[in-house]
Amino acid sequence: MTIKVAIAGARGRMGTTAIQAIEEANDAIVVAALDYKYDGLHVHNSTVNDQCHGIPIYTSLAELAEHHAPDVLLDVTDPNAVFVNVQAAIELGIYPVVGTSGLTRSQLDEIAVLVESHQIGCIVAPNFSLGAVLMMKFSAQAARYLGDVEIIELHHDRKLDAPSGTAVKTAEMIQQYRPAHIQGHPEEQVHIDGARGADVDGMKIHSVRLPGLLAHQQVLLGGEGELLTIRHDSFDRKSFMPGIMLAIREVMGRKELVYGLEHIID
Amino acid sequence: MTIKVAIAGARGRMGTTAIQAIEEANDAIVVAALDYKYDGLHVHNSTVNDQCHGIPIYTSLAELAEHHAPDVLLDVTDPNAVFVNVQAAIELGIYPVVGTSGLTRSQLDEIAVLVESHQIGCIVAPNFSLGAVLMMKFSAQAARYLGDVEIIELHHDRKLDAPSGTAVKTAEMIQQYRPAHIQGHPEEQVHIDGARGADVDGMKIHSVRLPGLLAHQQVLLGGEGELLTIRHDSFDRKSFMPGIMLAIREVMGRKELVYGLEHIID
Amino acid sequence: MTIKVAIAGARGRMGTTAIQAIEEANDAIVVAALDYKYDGLHVHNSTVNDQCHGIPIYTSLAELAEHHAPDVLLDVTDPNAVFVNVQAAIELGIYPVVGTSGLTRSQLDEIAVLVESHQIGCIVAPNFSLGAVLMMKFSAQAARYLGDVEIIELHHDRKLDAPSGTAVKTAEMIQQYRPAHIQGHPEEQVHIDGARGADVDGMKIHSVRLPGLLAHQQVLLGGEGELLTIRHDSFDRKSFMPGIMLAIREVMGRKELVYGLEHIID
Amino acid sequence: MTIKVAIAGARGRMGTTAIQAIEEANDAIVVAALDYKYDGLHVHNSTVNDQCHGIPIYTSLAELAEHHAPDVLLDVTDPNAVFVNVQAAIELGIYPVVGTSGLTRSQLDEIAVLVESHQIGCIVAPNFSLGAVLMMKFSAQAARYLGDVEIIELHHDRKLDAPSGTAVKTAEMIQQYRPAHIQGHPEEQVHIDGARGADVDGMKIHSVRLPGLLAHQQVLLGGEGELLTIRHDSFDRKSFMPGIMLAIREVMGRKELVYGLEHIID
Repeated sequence: MTIKVAIAGARGRMGTTAIQAIEEANDAIVVAALDYKYDGLHVHNSTVNDQCHGIPIYTSLAELAEHHAPDVLLDVTDPNAVFVNVQAAIELGIYPVVGTSGLTRSQLDEIAVLVESHQIGCIVAPNFSLGAVLMMKFSAQAARYLGDVEIIELHHDRKLDAPSGTAVKTAEMIQQYRPAHIQGHPEEQVHIDGARGADVDGMKIHSVRLPGLLAHQQVLLGGEGELLTIRHDSFDRKSFMPGIMLAIREVMGRKELVYGLEHIID
Repeated sequence: MTIKVAIAGARGRMGTTAIQAIEEANDAIVVAALDYKYDGLHVHNSTVNDQCHGIPIYTSLAELAEHHAPDVLLDVTDPNAVFVNVQAAIELGIYPVVGTSGLTRSQLDEIAVLVESHQIGCIVAPNFSLGAVLMMKFSAQAARYLGDVEIIELHHDRKLDAPSGTAVKTAEMIQQYRPAHIQGHPEEQVHIDGARGADVDGMKIHSVRLPGLLAHQQVLLGGEGELLTIRHDSFDRKSFMPGIMLAIREVMGRKELVYGLEHIID
Repeated sequence: MTIKVAIAGARGRMGTTAIQAIEEANDAIVVAALDYKYDGLHVHNSTVNDQCHGIPIYTSLAELAEHHAPDVLLDVTDPNAVFVNVQAAIELGIYPVVGTSGLTRSQLDEIAVLVESHQIGCIVAPNFSLGAVLMMKFSAQAARYLGDVEIIELHHDRKLDAPSGTAVKTAEMIQQYRPAHIQGHPEEQVHIDGARGADVDGMKIHSVRLPGLLAHQQVLLGGEGELLTIRHDSFDRKSFMPGIMLAIREVMGRKELVYGLEHIID
Repeated sequence: MTIKVAIAGARGRMGTTAIQAIEEANDAIVVAALDYKYDGLHVHNSTVNDQCHGIPIYTSLAELAEHHAPDVLLDVTDPNAVFVNVQAAIELGIYPVVGTSGLTRSQLDEIAVLVESHQIGCIVAPNFSLGAVLMMKFSAQAARYLGDVEIIELHHDRKLDAPSGTAVKTAEMIQQYRPAHIQGHPEEQVHIDGARGADVDGMKIHSVRLPGLLAHQQVLLGGEGELLTIRHDSFDRKSFMPGIMLAIREVMGRKELVYGLEHIID
């Protein structure tokens, strides 16, 4: 069976990567694009044209569904657009796969209810990089045994915020497994402010910003006489492609909301 | 409940570490030592004396059991002694925890049968370091998604053999999850023999030997645009203590042979 | 003073990077391009056009010099073209900066003689990355004190040859400082061929090839109780730009052949 | 020629290491120990006894010199004792080698004057680890070309202060070579205090404290498209031995005060 995928956000950088991923897979095809404009035109990679080649654009998901009967809606738009798209998809019996971290807690709750009442799967993935998801998952598991944890995340110096969202997410995932306790020397003396990093429940996060760097993170877990380090280097957006395909394949067999790829890999 | 532990191999370096681990725990005590000599004397840490302080030594496990009724026999002797000790323990209703990689396949099979017929648990752990076991386990799991793997193991230059047993064990564990395939450029040109390392089913192992180093290993798993690295540094034999205690606690609830700590951590 | 630069190889990837580097500097300009064809046309970035905008192309260096009087010829062509270009430049009183590792020993000797008789500087740089050159230079210096060395170079799996040219060059630079001796355990037992890597004078080189990787190298120098690691990560060709500018500025003050940027940084 | 060394601080951990270093060298011997007590007894490794074996103890350097005519006084005592010892040594024509970071600026100035007037060499080394000194020296040199620097230092969690003295010293050495400038995104938004580490002149220092760790530091130097990392791992106090011997050999050929081993290695 070939999975028929409609894509929202086809003209963006993530959309381009997604289209490429699906085109390279032999069990899925992109049948149409959902967009807020350009109805009736075509998108090919990230460019729009009016020729018949490329992916036909619709501004209405209902109309798109009528013509192309997609199995899955892959939504890589922004948080504002995504909620409405997902609701529409579920009503039409299309399985949504969403790549954004911007949905609120209450929006996710609403989706969960809707999904259950329609007996349809939905996957929301804040991060499509399997390597990054594995890093977070393994770090959380390891923290049960090696409970002293520090996170070093390293990014290019054009990154505005610190710590990174992935570092904070990692710490939160670890929190669920790590027995709460104070780390370090109880009478620690910090001679220059900030030396010991940002504190999340006793765990420390250090943010490095240097020109040249791309996106990297390492989680250090210490125990008596040993250290376990789990590091992820993200060199290129292509790293999202396997995660996108995994989600597309997996969503069809689900009947509930799955939040985070960590729940569909083992 | 306090777990009563008898220990075989108490005079060795591993035995000393084990005694220290049990003494520091508040749910287990060492009640006696099994040795091939020094019957009636005592062992305290790694030294033997004839005073009443310290751990009483027995050369017969039956006699030891009669006086001290141990729950667990922790065996950190050599491969030659261990098989007989384990058999005797099972017959006496004592749960064996064994720290050696030297048991043969057929010995393990025999133990499995014996254990089942007596409905008693037995844990055999080639490696008591939780960090090392986690590294191996995570590497194997990750290889399902990032199937191109190279292992770099680094040891002091007094180590005789290459690659290390842990590196080979890691590769074998990964083999069970990684789809078999050729790695690297199909027309690879190696200009100096050995540059590409040892080959295990397409995976490469590189052995570094330098003065100064202790025992380190990193597993590199590559995917399109990303790299996941799992590294373990072993700085001190104390790192075995949590694994020893975990096995002692866990074995009491088992009724089968468990080979490898990776099966009792999750 | 603004340094006037003529560039040979302007249409290649390295040429594009070089033009960008010079354009961003405020003490140098590109005045003309030397090419084997397209005489009279213009090059802008890597494209050729016939408009008056862009860099004018000449097929004769003499004619180029007559119209633009360049101070420096930056040659980033291939090894075949470079030797003739450099000879012509020296005869015309233009200072050559060459970015190739392809010149033979005898060609370099000839250039050295020519350069001296004309009292003109010439810099030949096999590698314009300052970071890579520093890694090699520091490794060589450190080997006087920490003489046990292993090199791990890591590249994407489309790289054909192993070990990398940079790794071999690094080992050769280290050889000049490191007292010759055998490394590792004298009775080392290698159970799987290649585990201990490629041997260069006792030093070991390990080549890792994985999808996702770019170009990385680490040099490990071990001593009793300590390890010094010098690592270089090359993420983007832009890393060549500072080295190109350094060479252009430096060559004007020289009256001899300099082979390798390591001799003009300290 | 065999260098005759007197040692102050022979009973401490550093003294024990120093005696071992000198005993293993074939061009130096320990002739006597200077101590504040135990006059007339002997020290062997770190224990004192009254037998004639071992190193004879003197409480007066003058008396020690009369009987043993040492060439060098190696002082590994505490900052309180060291200044008086060094003054006495210089007056007696003995070359001091001092292993402490505790001398004040004005004490060092006084020693410099004294040394010059007596035309005698003196080496003061805050750190005898050649690897650590090379790391600092190389980092400073590299910062001329890769001026964006962050330091990550990692120590066991019994360490009281942060950042480490070596990290601060490294930053100070780099300051002399690195053009002053602000690093990172000018509008950086730090969401959890301390994420960006301790600030030293724009450079950032991050202090990691975990059980299991020993003493480690890495200096990251970023440039457009590249990263240079210089890392030092200190696994054992034995790493001080080559630095001690280097200083002992080198001091005899000097006629001035040298502060820091970085000035006698190249």
